[in-house]
Amino acid sequence: MTQRPTIAEIAAAAGVSIPTVSKVLNQRPDVAPTTRERVERAIMESGYVHNRSAREDVEDHKKQPKLIDLISPSALDSDYCLEILRGIEEVLNQTDYRLALFSMHNNTPRERLWLSEVSLKTTCGAFLFTSIEPIRHPEKLRKQHIPFVVIDDVLQIGADIPSVGATNWVGGLMATEYLLGLGHQRIGTITGIPSHLTSRARLAGYQAALASKGIAFDTDLVRPGDFHHESGYAQTCALLELPLPPTAIFAASDLQATGVYQALYEKGLNVPKDMSVIGFDDVPTAERMSPPLTTVRQPLKEMGRMAAQMLLRMIEGETLESKRVELATSLVIRESCAPLSH
Amino acid sequence: MTQRPTIAEIAAAAGVSIPTVSKVLNQRPDVAPTTRERVERAIMESGYVHNRSAREDVEDHKKQPKLIDLISPSALDSDYCLEILRGIEEVLNQTDYRLALFSMHNNTPRERLWLSEVSLKTTCGAFLFTSIEPIRHPEKLRKQHIPFVVIDDVLQIGADIPSVGATNWVGGLMATEYLLGLGHQRIGTITGIPSHLTSRARLAGYQAALASKGIAFDTDLVRPGDFHHESGYAQTCALLELPLPPTAIFAASDLQATGVYQALYEKGLNVPKDMSVIGFDDVPTAERMSPPLTTVRQPLKEMGRMAAQMLLRMIEGETLESKRVELATSLVIRESCAPLSH
Repeated sequence: MTQRPTIAEIAAAAGVSIPTVSKVLNQRPDVAPTTRERVERAIMESGYVHNRSAREDVEDHKKQPKLIDLISPSALDSDYCLEILRGIEEVLNQTDYRLALFSMHNNTPRERLWLSEVSLKTTCGAFLFTSIEPIRHPEKLRKQHIPFVVIDDVLQIGADIPSVGATNWVGGLMATEYLLGLGHQRIGTITGIPSHLTSRARLAGYQAALASKGIAFDTDLVRPGDFHHESGYAQTCALLELPLPPTAIFAASDLQATGVYQALYEKGLNVPKDMSVIGFDDVPTAERMSPPLTTVRQPLKEMGRMAAQMLLRMIEGETLESKRVELATSLVIRESCAPLSH
Repeated sequence: MTQRPTIAEIAAAAGVSIPTVSKVLNQRPDVAPTTRERVERAIMESGYVHNRSAREDVEDHKKQPKLIDLISPSALDSDYCLEILRGIEEVLNQTDYRLALFSMHNNTPRERLWLSEVSLKTTCGAFLFTSIEPIRHPEKLRKQHIPFVVIDDVLQIGADIPSVGATNWVGGLMATEYLLGLGHQRIGTITGIPSHLTSRARLAGYQAALASKGIAFDTDLVRPGDFHHESGYAQTCALLELPLPPTAIFAASDLQATGVYQALYEKGLNVPKDMSVIGFDDVPTAERMSPPLTTVRQPLKEMGRMAAQMLLRMIEGETLESKRVELATSLVIRESCAPLSH
């Protein structure tokens, strides 16, 4: 067929009636599977283009999947993000919302695309993941009346913005108190990105624990990190070069603790015999380390679930009693800390 | 306002003209930002529901985001998946397609939802991620003429199905030849899920390397795993209990190698002095291990990029010259293997 085929031609090719072709085109259920297949093959072979009416378009419009956006700054770059994602999915899997990923990667065209789609309201709601763009994105969403929840707010975007996090201060306190309880006095810490709210809270918890034992705060023992492996490695090397190195290190993330382990390994130092190490997050990697890492657990999956439940309620038009939710951290004791040996 | 408000009432409340309200409702650009905000506030406070025409719905329909589905069996459960995802995103970020996640988790209602959406053709294309459902999903997509690419085909779904993988056989060969070159003769291997094509290819590569050196194949040294940490741990314990344990272990994934490390750590055995260990994948975790893991690199990000490029070409209606693509694996030598000491 060189000309545009008609339904009649397709019906002839498939050996069925015209109404049957029409039923298949309109995805009606009352067609036998083998017949449907025959018609579909004939349609495909013919190159037929369904001449849709506006009405059909409108009906299809109503069938468009309902999207919720997950906006993350620079790709989901660790199993930390994955755990939260898993929690979100657990909740959304019970609904007919679909999760669309939007990693920005500091990619301006990508961001523009997202902003333009937000303007068209093609999204029902959004999760903002440890946002690097704490001002523009929330404002844009607000303007379009699109509900959103910030996960792990790092830059204090405001008390009226719905957000889910963990009790970082208490976590820093618990980690340090645990090391103090094992007899350590010189406790180094490698912080997360210093400007982040989460890093500041963990560091403040560390300081509070030392202060409560009357231990002077030694700035040499506090090293700025960025949550990543490399800073854990580099800052552990720096701590080991101090005239009086620490006997324990509190890393602001498990990922950073892998860098601590590596630096100690290279110097031939044993964890926990020569150095106690404690992390933060309790990502799945933590218990796979050798030795398994003692760490402060953030309930990441629960945070994801909570964020999803909050967002769904907002989409339904409900008002949240409490907009900022912090879930409890807890200490997970494994094998990377030991009593101070004199 | 207890009754449904009119545009006139909103105009009055905002102190603007009726055409201005109309412009804001229709998202026209020619409204001053402060005016737009005032109108939007009035709209929100009034509870006004925009009475859309079918024409507008049709126009919006055309603006619906273009979706590509990522179907994964049981959540993106490791940084292995993340690397591939990153490659996919790199390519899609240059387009206006959006990636929607669909983790099945053996969740039947979820699967039904996806299948029904496929029937409605709300998706432009799909990536099938190491599919656990190798028959039904591809068939369904084919029936609806929705292009798809299988990533890391594990169950040999057919040569005519577009797929992207890595040269697993060569990878197994290289890993084993490297250990043989270091003088090891008793080389244990912990396989991936034995029925998977990828596991079988890696094991066959291992066997081919041994055979080429005339080393008899010892079934005691081949232990079934499942790519996960726990099987690496358990099977290493089993290997160590052999009357004549191996001096080197080839793990079918880096994740499994973390379990090998842990078992060795518990027995007080040093990597690589007492046991050489080699992994497979080269996920970001590999170089963060202590000691950093020697491994066979799968170019995961490139696999993601390749899959995305193939899918985009198919969506454009192009024909792929080559449907099954395998990208080259390579050996990444770090610090977990050492020459056999006699």
